[in-house]
Amino acid sequence: MASAEESKRWVRMMTAQTPTNIAVIKYWGKRDETLILPVNDSISVTLDPDHLCTTTTVAVSPSFEEDRMWLNGKEISLSGGRFQSCLREIRRRAGDVEDREKGLRIGKSDWEKLHLHIASFNNFPTAAGLASSAAGFACLVFALAKLMNAKEDQSQLSAIARQGSGSACRSLFGGFVKWIMGNDKDGSDSLAVQLAHDKHWDDLVIIIAVVSSRQKETSSTSGMRESVETSLLLQHRVKEVVPKRIVQMEEAIKNHDFASFAQLTCADSNQFHAVCLDTCPPIFYMNDTSHRIINCVEKWNRLEGTPQVAYTFDAGPNAVLISRDRKAAVQLLQRLLFYFPPNSDTDLNSYVIGDKSILKDAGLETTRDLEALPPPPEVKDAQKYKGDVSYFICTRPGRGPVMLSDESRALLDPETGFPK
Amino acid sequence: MASAEESKRWVRMMTAQTPTNIAVIKYWGKRDETLILPVNDSISVTLDPDHLCTTTTVAVSPSFEEDRMWLNGKEISLSGGRFQSCLREIRRRAGDVEDREKGLRIGKSDWEKLHLHIASFNNFPTAAGLASSAAGFACLVFALAKLMNAKEDQSQLSAIARQGSGSACRSLFGGFVKWIMGNDKDGSDSLAVQLAHDKHWDDLVIIIAVVSSRQKETSSTSGMRESVETSLLLQHRVKEVVPKRIVQMEEAIKNHDFASFAQLTCADSNQFHAVCLDTCPPIFYMNDTSHRIINCVEKWNRLEGTPQVAYTFDAGPNAVLISRDRKAAVQLLQRLLFYFPPNSDTDLNSYVIGDKSILKDAGLETTRDLEALPPPPEVKDAQKYKGDVSYFICTRPGRGPVMLSDESRALLDPETGFPK
Repeated sequence: MASAEESKRWVRMMTAQTPTNIAVIKYWGKRDETLILPVNDSISVTLDPDHLCTTTTVAVSPSFEEDRMWLNGKEISLSGGRFQSCLREIRRRAGDVEDREKGLRIGKSDWEKLHLHIASFNNFPTAAGLASSAAGFACLVFALAKLMNAKEDQSQLSAIARQGSGSACRSLFGGFVKWIMGNDKDGSDSLAVQLAHDKHWDDLVIIIAVVSSRQKETSSTSGMRESVETSLLLQHRVKEVVPKRIVQMEEAIKNHDFASFAQLTCADSNQFHAVCLDTCPPIFYMNDTSHRIINCVEKWNRLEGTPQVAYTFDAGPNAVLISRDRKAAVQLLQRLLFYFPPNSDTDLNSYVIGDKSILKDAGLETTRDLEALPPPPEVKDAQKYKGDVSYFICTRPGRGPVMLSDESRALLDPETGFPK
Repeated sequence: MASAEESKRWVRMMTAQTPTNIAVIKYWGKRDETLILPVNDSISVTLDPDHLCTTTTVAVSPSFEEDRMWLNGKEISLSGGRFQSCLREIRRRAGDVEDREKGLRIGKSDWEKLHLHIASFNNFPTAAGLASSAAGFACLVFALAKLMNAKEDQSQLSAIARQGSGSACRSLFGGFVKWIMGNDKDGSDSLAVQLAHDKHWDDLVIIIAVVSSRQKETSSTSGMRESVETSLLLQHRVKEVVPKRIVQMEEAIKNHDFASFAQLTCADSNQFHAVCLDTCPPIFYMNDTSHRIINCVEKWNRLEGTPQVAYTFDAGPNAVLISRDRKAAVQLLQRLLFYFPPNSDTDLNSYVIGDKSILKDAGLETTRDLEALPPPPEVKDAQKYKGDVSYFICTRPGRGPVMLSDESRALLDPETGFPK
């Protein structure tokens, strides 16, 4: 660390962008709370980071006095066990770094003494229940690994991110990802692998309905703990149901078999929520709006004879709707906007965000166009539920983590290492 | 049938009153659709017929040209298989009847040729999801058995009522009742037995919240068929969970062990709804109001350290709340009326019906008193949900079927045999 000692003024930093993901075979229940080891395998789709992602800049400098982190511009504590696990594990794997341009060299052993600054930003509302912690921990671990020149592959990094937030391990890859539960007591084989890259099933279109909720929800950490302790159905799900579904889901993804994919996705989402309901006291994540979205999809799928859309819900009322193709997505969006028009003070442009080309294809330009939408043919006396959805995000399966070399996108000042 | 042939003008009739019941260990799933044989035992509490009951008058006369039935004053068809099963089975068991007063004698074999008039009336809204078909079929079978002098005991009658509506078999007894699923293929051993009479656990007070619903619900018949066909959790419930709960529930009832009774009742209601959610397509019977009532009870029970109230929900959003004693019922009613005040055009007298003494004990006389109710100590910033409950019924465990000898309470005219 010769150069570092000479001058305390250098700052070395890296910026990464990491996607969020949605499980289609759900993770619910830990067998080890500290290491975050799950009771079953799970499979997810990575969502396009253009619409939902976390950007994280990590920096190291001899001038930093302690590890610090800012989330969406606000400093947060790093003292929690989960942050500490990730920082410890990644420091343990740090390598030698030589930066000729800056004329500095950081030895493997120096990382224990150097402090870090971390700034993270979600391009979507953190509290909306959109797996921000998955993208967040994945991005933290991915960026730190680059900064510290840790020679781990993505799966090995996923096992570290897992210790921050279980589902974070699945955000280390794009496309379709499996989190293998593993067997080892130390968790070393509980990691993510990529099943298919993001262009493998390019037809799929994803629409997320962010549902307004008046209820404070049970955190997934305490919820799954209570399910493991009290649900008499969870063990049966874990042992008998999920292993078969994992095999079937891998097949469905491999073969672009949307009918099987949709059937498994919907059934597994419903069974996860069934286990929540079988918990004591019961946990309700879906609300009446979630139920109405399911009914809308189920009725339409039945009318078509073959599934057009799959739905899945995480630990909250938001619906993630996966359409078989663009045509189905257009018809889905028309249905959703028919049932759930925005409040009168909301304009269509801020009500449907993300990939707005779907909106255009649906022939919808203003809120006035929504009033002209005909009721879907599969329902009689369709009711409308104005204001029950906060907004929609149109997106698609997406790529895994990337480094952003453009320094203008860094969240920390390259001179001071503090938030810009 | 000498006398009967002499004059076609006589009418012989009987009037019975039968309670409804609420399952505390749920019946969900048939192993035989026609005979209505269940996949597991169930246990219920009979509700006081003073507040919820069916009254049925059955009449026979040589002047009747066909079997006919009126429900709540409106003629309904008897052609359905379930009515036909009950009529056939009870006719098969008919005995000789001699009415000296009327100077008539009906032989065992005459019943095949004689037609029946049946009038039935529920003292509660039929469509409110309050097990009207249970009380209805129980009352039909019970009254016909008396009219036809069938020498069956109550359990044997319950096996006939079962073929009208499964849960009807449990309405042949007061107090606590078990429906034994049985083993025989012909269903002869699938019948109800009384576990404890209605005075056995006299402390219990029951409050029913009739919840407003905009949704048309899946009928329990088709719902349970779909669960049997598609739910991967149902078989586990049926084989591993319910048999143990039945034993535990019988013990709890025997010992007046409210803590166990409440734990089992709530867990089994939640598990039944979990199985509904695990059905494809999923079935939602509870809505946001149901969830809020559960949360209200769970929070309060936790505050008290020991259960004050058990909740259970059938195939609809209505909550049946069983309080450990009168004191708990008063506190429960105060909480319910705090969270769910009536719409401004509803007066308290029609908002809380049944045993109004609970209301009086709660110190509530007018809707203005409701506004003065303090928020329950177990919640911060309690929200109110005005109009989300249609009305409350205060009741208690009650007696089984009775004959009404007072002819003024008959629903058919003693001269004509037609509705009064």
